[in-house]
Order: sequence, then structure tokens, then C-alpha cells
Amino acid sequence: MQRIIILGCGLVGRTIAMDLAQKYQVTAVDINSEKLTDENNDDNLFFQQADLTDIKVLKDIILDYDLVVGAVPGYLGFQTLKTVIEAGKNIVDISFFPENAFELNELATQNNVTAIVDCGVAPGLSNLICGYHAAHMEMSSFKCYVGGLPKEKIEPFFYKAPFSPVDVLEEYIRPARFKQENVIVTKEALSDLEILNFDKVGELEAFNTDGLRSLLQTIDCPNMIEKTLRYPGHVDKIKTLMLAGFFSNEPLNIGKESFSPLQLTSKILFDQWTLKPTDEEFTILTVEIEGNENGKKETYKYELYDEYDASKQNSSMARTTGFTCNAIADLVLQGKIAAKGVLAPEQIANEEGVFKGILDYLKARNVNLNCSTNNNQLLA
Amino acid sequence: MQRIIILGCGLVGRTIAMDLAQKYQVTAVDINSEKLTDENNDDNLFFQQADLTDIKVLKDIILDYDLVVGAVPGYLGFQTLKTVIEAGKNIVDISFFPENAFELNELATQNNVTAIVDCGVAPGLSNLICGYHAAHMEMSSFKCYVGGLPKEKIEPFFYKAPFSPVDVLEEYIRPARFKQENVIVTKEALSDLEILNFDKVGELEAFNTDGLRSLLQTIDCPNMIEKTLRYPGHVDKIKTLMLAGFFSNEPLNIGKESFSPLQLTSKILFDQWTLKPTDEEFTILTVEIEGNENGKKETYKYELYDEYDASKQNSSMARTTGFTCNAIADLVLQGKIAAKGVLAPEQIANEEGVFKGILDYLKARNVNLNCSTNNNQLLA
Repeated sequence: MQRIIILGCGLVGRTIAMDLAQKYQVTAVDINSEKLTDENNDDNLFFQQADLTDIKVLKDIILDYDLVVGAVPGYLGFQTLKTVIEAGKNIVDISFFPENAFELNELATQNNVTAIVDCGVAPGLSNLICGYHAAHMEMSSFKCYVGGLPKEKIEPFFYKAPFSPVDVLEEYIRPARFKQENVIVTKEALSDLEILNFDKVGELEAFNTDGLRSLLQTIDCPNMIEKTLRYPGHVDKIKTLMLAGFFSNEPLNIGKESFSPLQLTSKILFDQWTLKPTDEEFTILTVEIEGNENGKKETYKYELYDEYDASKQNSSMARTTGFTCNAIADLVLQGKIAAKGVLAPEQIANEEGVFKGILDYLKARNVNLNCSTNNNQLLA
Repeated sequence: MQRIIILGCGLVGRTIAMDLAQKYQVTAVDINSEKLTDENNDDNLFFQQADLTDIKVLKDIILDYDLVVGAVPGYLGFQTLKTVIEAGKNIVDISFFPENAFELNELATQNNVTAIVDCGVAPGLSNLICGYHAAHMEMSSFKCYVGGLPKEKIEPFFYKAPFSPVDVLEEYIRPARFKQENVIVTKEALSDLEILNFDKVGELEAFNTDGLRSLLQTIDCPNMIEKTLRYPGHVDKIKTLMLAGFFSNEPLNIGKESFSPLQLTSKILFDQWTLKPTDEEFTILTVEIEGNENGKKETYKYELYDEYDASKQNSSMARTTGFTCNAIADLVLQGKIAAKGVLAPEQIANEEGVFKGILDYLKARNVNLNCSTNNNQLLA
């Protein structure tokens, strides 16, 4: 039986571990021992407490495993990836760190390592869709809309964060890059607000965020855009805070210490934005692709709607992110991904059986990605 | 020449001092020496630096004066008033402290002191109007709308504070008391939002604040309400902050210290809400009175609109507050106010010549209070 080590056992890491333990021998590692519990008593699931910020500890701990899954917080992601590549281990990563992973491509190639990053839902599944179609058509437009939202709408923000609230605020501040007529355009986050209607949830607002990441470098498509989805009214309230200076990074002297308004705001919002284990939430993803395929104009529209799984206390964000990651991990362990180096999901999407294999893996776990074409035919 | 001492030389204290120095010998006191400057080099205006939080210092400093004007920050107001009364000095006060001034009434009566509190625009001028008409009619309704606003509307709050931003936030948090059919009703601040139209400034929003203060105790009128005026949209943004927990008093641990969100919010808003000496602003006050007078139904509507005086760099809030205070101080020094004890303005309004004397004092300084009746006749 092949052996996998999961680095980080947060909300998503836990879901990843319990799912992979159905087929592999899995060890989940976290510095926080409270996170290391398994309600199901899986025979193949083991826990280990360790400080993954210590590179020496990390190098030792991964030695005996066939695959590493990186699920550490973003700020630790790049360092962790580098250490794993140096150790010559294959890795599938969902730590979504801000640094450019491709800087480690040469190192990974030299070490004969397959390191696949951004293996979540968006980025992740959206990249797989993009990469798959880019290989089969001359793509003219790629649009991605994604959101993870609570079912209950609580004033004033109608929002809880399925991942760290600090990272959400960072997403609202960082300028958004997209591609327009082959030019990379930068606009402020929260711009180009539009209201869209979704069958399952009604109206949501969509706005620019910096989510295209690797796609801006890897995919040859003149128009690409990624927008985040929230309940209507959210952006107006966030903009109020922003205009009022609550997101500023300029330090303020308070008492004997110095803090930025952003630090204080994160602290104030943390509790109310943190998704509790019993809070019901859903994930919504829409990808729209246009282009020429076999001499004809084609459009593809992918739609995913996924809900919290009460029976397993798995959040939808953990399901959609974790199962996409696991689908890729499963393919790596089966030897079905030949490429070496640091790879984004779009770069493996066209390998034999990969895209379909991932969709099948998701479907088996009731994460359903529907696709319709310009002829309104549903694809398999 | 009679001698006046002004305790506190902030924005309003400064205006008070320079105006009173035209007729009296005036000493203005503040702990901050930077505030103790006189651009006009008035012959009768003197400055003294002193720590007014020290009761012994305060008692000594007021000894040789005929009248005290209290213009200290709210948190110091009650203690200062008590000390002045103990010293047997008459005082006119605009420190708007939260404690109940009438607790000192017995002490003031014993010491043969006239201590008039809340001598600003609202509370202050509004109380004088209320007290004057209550003595001449069976009042059935009293409504007061008041706001001090910047001319320039800056996103997101369209607001700057002509007094301390911390006190403004306090006003938005403290439940508002008003009187409905002879019952004192308490509602949360910012409630009962309505849009009103004003000739000089267009639409403003009005909402409940706890501004009736002494009127709830002193005036026999079944329906009384006080509302604060802001540019439309202000309340919605304040409510966003409030609902998001930014006004909470629950301490948060940040770094090695502990702060409440309200403290942090005050700090973040302080700079942008602080009115700069060159920021143009205006004061708007409307008082509507209904009742039976001489067997007939009568209504009175008082309207005041006053602007920043660029020539003297006097804010309108300092003008309307300070000149009302000075009008009362002038009457006290002329021996025209006979009552002793702690008095709110409505309790002196019906003394011979007082109400008209105050309106004349204001008019001479171009602060014009217009009154119309149900017959649309303008009163003098």
C-alpha cells in the first residue's frame, strides 16, 4: 500500500486525509495536536504532531512517504514546497502561497519531482477546465466566477470565510490582474461589480479579484477574467471599511504598541467571519469558455454547486478543494502524470485520462461539475 | 471691568474667549500651551497654562473672577462644575458631561451660586426655545433636529466632527430617550431614520440620539423628540461598522495589550473625522413646537442655519455654541438672572428679558434664528 503524508491538518487537510485513507496509508501532520483526531477510526489514518516551520523536522518527517500533500497556511507554502522538492518527493499542493511557484521549476526538474500546485477548486478545478479546452481549441475567452458562501445571511456582510478571514481581506486589497485583448490589465480589487443570477442561490454579486494566478502565464487566450461571488451588498460594506481607512497598512500608535488598521480590522472581523464546524455553506463555480474548435465557434459553460456535508461535517469548501487535490494525488500515485517540474493544474489537464479521471473522482464523491455547450447539450 | 475665567481653550473655548474679551477682562486657561494664543492681540484677553484636573489648582485659579465659563472636555465637566460651585462662583457651562448636573443643585443653592449648564446650541439654544414657549402655552409637542456638518462631502461618511470624534461615536451608541404620550421611551441610537429637506442644504437624514437631557425632567410636554442630522447615507455606514462589531466595548487581546474595538475604531476614524481649522462647515437647527396658547392651537418653527466664519477662522459650531454661552454669561454678569442653583437653559428662559436678550446677542454676531408660526408670520 502506498503511503501519503499530509502536511497541515486544518479544515481542508482533515477532509483530504480522511478521503485518501480509504485507499492509501495516510499520516496527517500538524503542530496543533487538537486537530489530530479521527472520528471514524480509519485503520489507515495516522496522526503526528510536528512543527513544520522547522525545515529539518520537515525533511525528516517526509522521508518514508511516496507522496506529499501540502496543506499548510499560505505564508508557509513556498518554503514547504521548496523543502519537499529538495528532498526529491512528489507533492500535490493546496497552500495557495503568494510567491511564484515556477521559480522552483528547475529544481524540481533536476530532482525528477512532479510538484503540482494550486490544486483546489479555483484555482484548481477551474485551471484544469481551462487547460483541457485550451489544448483542444483556439480559446478566445475564459471567465471564471467562484465563491464560497454561508447559507445563512447575517448582517452586515452576509459572509463567513471557509478559509482564513485574513486571506479574504488580502484578496480584497491586492489589485486584480486579468487579460483583455492580449494585454494584462490591473484594476483594483472589488471593481467591475455586476449582479448575476444563479439557479440554486438567486442573485449574487461578482467583482474582480486576483485569482487567475498561473493562467496568466501558461494559457494562450486573449481574454481571461476571474471574479469572486458574494451576496449582494457585501462589496458596498467592504468598500465603506476600505474608504474609512480600516484596511490601511500605515501603523497607528495605540497604547505602547503599534498596529495597522488592517491588523485591527482582521482581529475584529475574525470571530464573526470564521465558519464554525456546524455552519452550513456552499461553493459555487461557473466557468465560461469561448473559442474556435475544428473551425467552428464553440462555447462551454461549466457549473458546480456543492453543499456542506452534514453527515461527515465536511464543509463544501473542504470537499471541493480537498477532493480535487486528492483526485490529482491519486493520479500521481497511479503514475498517470508523466510531467516533471513545478506544474499548475492546467499543465497536466491534457495528459491522457487526467481531466476525465478527476471529474470521475469528484462525481464519485457527489461533487458534480455540469457542462453545457452552445448547443445546450450536456457533456458526459 | 468684570472679570471672567474660561476653563478650557479648545475650538469653542477660544471663540468664547475672544468674543467675551470685547466687553470683559478675560483669562483663558488650558493645559496645552499651544492653544493659548490670540491672533487679535486683544487688550483684555489673557492666557494661563494650568492643569485643571488638579482640584486644588482649579480652586486657586478661579478665586479672583466674577464668573467662570466651563469649557473643559466632557469627562472633566462634572468634577469641574462641583469645584466651582464649592468655591461659590457663578458658572456658565458647555462641557456637556454625562453625569446628572442637578445632583449639585442643593450645593449650589446653599452656596448662593447660579450654575447654568448645557449652554450650547442643542442642548442650549433649543432648551431656551422650549423653556420660553412652555411658560406661555400648553405644549403638546416639541421636536428638535440638529447637526453640525462639513460643506465638503467626503466618502464614505460625508462627515467631520466639530467636536471630539470619540464623543460622536458615544452619541451613536448610547440609547436615545424621548417622550411619547407622556411616557419616556428608549430606543437604540440611529433608529427612526427619516429624510428631511432643508432650503439651504437639501436632503439630510435625521435619526434618534439621546439629546433631550434635562428637558425630559424639567418640561411638562407629552411628546418630545431630538434627532441628529447627517448627509444621507451616513447612518447606513455607521450601522455597518456597528453590526460588524467595530463599536464593541468587549476587550480584544492584540499583541501584549488589550483594547476594545471601539477604542481602535475611534483611533482609526480620528484623523479623518477631525475638522481642520480651514474646513468649512455649517450648523443647522430646527425646532418645531405645537400646543394650545390662549385657547388656540399654535405652532412655532425655529430655524437656524449658520456657516463657518472664514474671516475669524471661527467654526460655525464654535460660533453657535460659544455665542449662546456668552449671551447667557453676559446676562449673569449684568445681574439679569435671579435664579440660584444648578439650572438648565429652559429654566431661565422665561426670566424677564432673557430669551429676547439671547436672540439679540446672537443676531449681533450674525447667528440668526428665524421663527415662523402657523400663520406663516415671521416673529421678530
